Amino acid sequence: MTALRDYVEAVPLIDHHVHGCWLNPVDRTRFENALNEANTEALADFDSAFDTQLGFAVRAHCAPEIGLARHADPDAYWGARSAIPEADLARRLLGGARVSDWLVDTGFATGVADPAELAGLGVGRVHEVVRLETIAEEAARAPGDYAAAFDQILWRRARTAVGTKSVLAYRGGFTGDLSEPSPAEVVAAAARWRDAGGTRLTDRVLLRFGLHRALRLGKPLQFHVGFGDRDCDLDAANPLHLLDFLRVSGDTPVMLLHCYPYEREAGYLAQAFNNVYLDGGLSINYLGARSTAFIGRLLEMAPFRKILYSSDGFGPAELHHLGARLWRNGIGTVLQGFVDADEWSEADAIRVVDLIAHQNARRVYGI
Amino acid sequence: MTALRDYVEAVPLIDHHVHGCWLNPVDRTRFENALNEANTEALADFDSAFDTQLGFAVRAHCAPEIGLARHADPDAYWGARSAIPEADLARRLLGGARVSDWLVDTGFATGVADPAELAGLGVGRVHEVVRLETIAEEAARAPGDYAAAFDQILWRRARTAVGTKSVLAYRGGFTGDLSEPSPAEVVAAAARWRDAGGTRLTDRVLLRFGLHRALRLGKPLQFHVGFGDRDCDLDAANPLHLLDFLRVSGDTPVMLLHCYPYEREAGYLAQAFNNVYLDGGLSINYLGARSTAFIGRLLEMAPFRKILYSSDGFGPAELHHLGARLWRNGIGTVLQGFVDADEWSEADAIRVVDLIAHQNARRVYGI
Amino acid sequence: MTALRDYVEAVPLIDHHVHGCWLNPVDRTRFENALNEANTEALADFDSAFDTQLGFAVRAHCAPEIGLARHADPDAYWGARSAIPEADLARRLLGGARVSDWLVDTGFATGVADPAELAGLGVGRVHEVVRLETIAEEAARAPGDYAAAFDQILWRRARTAVGTKSVLAYRGGFTGDLSEPSPAEVVAAAARWRDAGGTRLTDRVLLRFGLHRALRLGKPLQFHVGFGDRDCDLDAANPLHLLDFLRVSGDTPVMLLHCYPYEREAGYLAQAFNNVYLDGGLSINYLGARSTAFIGRLLEMAPFRKILYSSDGFGPAELHHLGARLWRNGIGTVLQGFVDADEWSEADAIRVVDLIAHQNARRVYGI
Repeated sequence: MTALRDYVEAVPLIDHHVHGCWLNPVDRTRFENALNEANTEALADFDSAFDTQLGFAVRAHCAPEIGLARHADPDAYWGARSAIPEADLARRLLGGARVSDWLVDTGFATGVADPAELAGLGVGRVHEVVRLETIAEEAARAPGDYAAAFDQILWRRARTAVGTKSVLAYRGGFTGDLSEPSPAEVVAAAARWRDAGGTRLTDRVLLRFGLHRALRLGKPLQFHVGFGDRDCDLDAANPLHLLDFLRVSGDTPVMLLHCYPYEREAGYLAQAFNNVYLDGGLSINYLGARSTAFIGRLLEMAPFRKILYSSDGFGPAELHHLGARLWRNGIGTVLQGFVDADEWSEADAIRVVDLIAHQNARRVYGI
Repeated sequence: MTALRDYVEAVPLIDHHVHGCWLNPVDRTRFENALNEANTEALADFDSAFDTQLGFAVRAHCAPEIGLARHADPDAYWGARSAIPEADLARRLLGGARVSDWLVDTGFATGVADPAELAGLGVGRVHEVVRLETIAEEAARAPGDYAAAFDQILWRRARTAVGTKSVLAYRGGFTGDLSEPSPAEVVAAAARWRDAGGTRLTDRVLLRFGLHRALRLGKPLQFHVGFGDRDCDLDAANPLHLLDFLRVSGDTPVMLLHCYPYEREAGYLAQAFNNVYLDGGLSINYLGARSTAFIGRLLEMAPFRKILYSSDGFGPAELHHLGARLWRNGIGTVLQGFVDADEWSEADAIRVVDLIAHQNARRVYGI
Repeated sequence: MTALRDYVEAVPLIDHHVHGCWLNPVDRTRFENALNEANTEALADFDSAFDTQLGFAVRAHCAPEIGLARHADPDAYWGARSAIPEADLARRLLGGARVSDWLVDTGFATGVADPAELAGLGVGRVHEVVRLETIAEEAARAPGDYAAAFDQILWRRARTAVGTKSVLAYRGGFTGDLSEPSPAEVVAAAARWRDAGGTRLTDRVLLRFGLHRALRLGKPLQFHVGFGDRDCDLDAANPLHLLDFLRVSGDTPVMLLHCYPYEREAGYLAQAFNNVYLDGGLSINYLGARSTAFIGRLLEMAPFRKILYSSDGFGPAELHHLGARLWRNGIGTVLQGFVDADEWSEADAIRVVDLIAHQNARRVYGI
């Protein structure tokens, strides 16, 4: 151990993009499916989510948290895990992440803890990030003018929420026109959408409208970027397609999430725009033993004051825990390598750990 | 040496995508040109294929197989190599690869051993993979209805072949509509093509028809992906462009071959679809000393039951040999790194070696 | 230290793509902004260019050159730096790079040394690379036929210049038609452009005309590729979009510069075309401690006789120095790794160092 390694191990984190964890028991099939992000179908009979980098990482790092030896086999892991009440498991695994603040995206929350329940676990402060497409769907159901309803909901939610989130990547991707639509276009698009039922927003005019309202709000705007499930066309979720949008995004912080396999492109954008930030949440978990290489790539073109930590955990509390565990291991290894090569001083490395672990998030979100 | 390293060294391989090797003597110019995949012209006078990663790898790993010191210089290598009858060299180099089964793409076979000749070398069992575009070109020359002729040839060949192969990447790439054409569209396109001579298929309707017939056949369908010669537009051979096709590909295994520099995208697709697999054949050879880094990237998002081994050797027997040699070295180094970091257990690492070396191929191809 | 490391440390370099350095004092704001390539605005108040890989590399490697300890803090660095007359600093830092020949792109030269001033520093021979778009803008101001004026200027400049440079990446990118326009198209486009004022060339017909005149000239043609400032659409600066142009580029050497994050694509093109070359200038500086990984990726598909060294330094003399420093460190580490793994012999590694450091440049540029 070195001073740097010790520091990384102890530093408190702000998890600036995360979802709720499970509080109720699940069966093994559901558990394994929750360890595959990209597949929208049930896993094939011949397959097991334990035979992946994430599955191996769960067995390496979460097994000791529930009383098993490192690398316990899948059956033993499942046996021990399912013998612990889900809320106890959550307290143990989320507590072990040493996260001071969880910024929770509440836009997709089926079957997982809501912010109040998460706060009730006593594992850190909880803040909300509101999803723009959810606000749009609420506005579609509200009476009267769509734009006014959208604004009213957004401003009301933003009194407590610390940021906004867009899943544009899942609603047609980043390609094409992302300029602000005219009021008349919004009126017409909203009427069409409401006539068609007003469910799951895919209308580009209204998606664009939501983004530009979020820019006006000025709170950090998170984008799902890159890696996700196959409903998202990965190629259209390359952040370079956001270039024109970023050129008009002013001072509102834009947070590029996940980013794999476009983390180098995202880092470039973080250098190119004063208001662009990135993280590697979700990807780090899924990369397991390979996440160190990915964390290294996050530290290329992006200025160090523009990189944040997140887990993007959703469902199994293992994901909330592992995000922190793998990040601590990975950043420790990468930065220790820079220090050992005498490219960085240890003091600088420790300072960069603080920036990514919590200082950048604290500055950007004002928490 | 460790138990893992020993295991990797001894494990028998299934080379699930390969071509014939030379059986007749070649001159040095032809040999050097065969060590450049991408260039369709003769190498420039100032250049030498020995001054590449592949050339260095040949001298490092094949020189000792023909009685020379490791890193023997190009002239010495060429001298010793050309003194050995080509078939003897093939037996020695292919035998040294310790491959139990060779799955041979017979679609492009000028100047190389056919499956019977390869089997005659006594270096492992030989199976055939039939190329869809070759079947199409045969169907164009057959009398009567094109679609019926295609099906008749495909089903007849599939009685012995273990899979199909498409070089769509070389016939316009993966972009654009890849849906199944209507019977009327096929009739019209076939008539046009036959009128125009029926050579080298580039008609998109008939290319799409072939793919969907292969899906119906249900045997593993291999796609050339990424790295190849410059007749292929590399950008259009990005497997992400296959997304819509994969969404309708059902249960037929789809094998993404080579993949460089899109191996991370291919790994994502292998996680996203139960029926998608990948390998790094061809790329591993050309990367030589850099192939270890590439093999690491193959072990990111793809579940471990979805990764296969191949060499994609064609022509010089060095390629059939090196594929195995570099894969053994690379996977050993990558997995030993995971074990040394205590991210994986050694037992898991050995199990993953078995999956990639032969178990996945055995399951998917039913051999 | 090893013989290889010693050799890398001492080998003289040809910096085949560079700009002038500052000769006059600057303030700290301007200095810090010059350490951010991608951002076209002033850095945000909360940010510092010292908190980047480049900033850390400046403190690690340039601080000792100006009498400070390695990793001196930013204030100390700025204090010591600004106490040295700019021309003295340039002599010290450029001299320390041990570059025998500087190939200077004179197309963008505001506030920096011109070739004569650079030569006057006594830090190596200076050659000129002329920018095609600058010649076009001169031709727009010349009387008479545009094409004739362009040719007259190009051939006159080429009497002393060793190559040409295109910033097509900044003038719409590489996508779309890059074929040679007809004389009538050139006449019409030139008339339109002159009527509109003839400033900053963005007309595609005239950009294409310039490229094809450079092919006819036959001297090496440099392209800005990938990483640059945000006026460039990074996605449209992917060298794969040059494929059709390269297919008609004949024997004229085409030099792909910078390349990040498309260095693997550029390497593929260098294998695919006898006349294509690449370097990693600019990117190496900005990657700092991560440049070793990048230098490794430059050594993948590109034949070793097709890779060159450059710094792309512009402005602060630190950039001209660091390019060499980081390249020596990085190539030493990468190649020593190949040698230690017994994948390469040390003699081969030393030979490849010579090729990249100066032999390839000497052959291609005829200097």
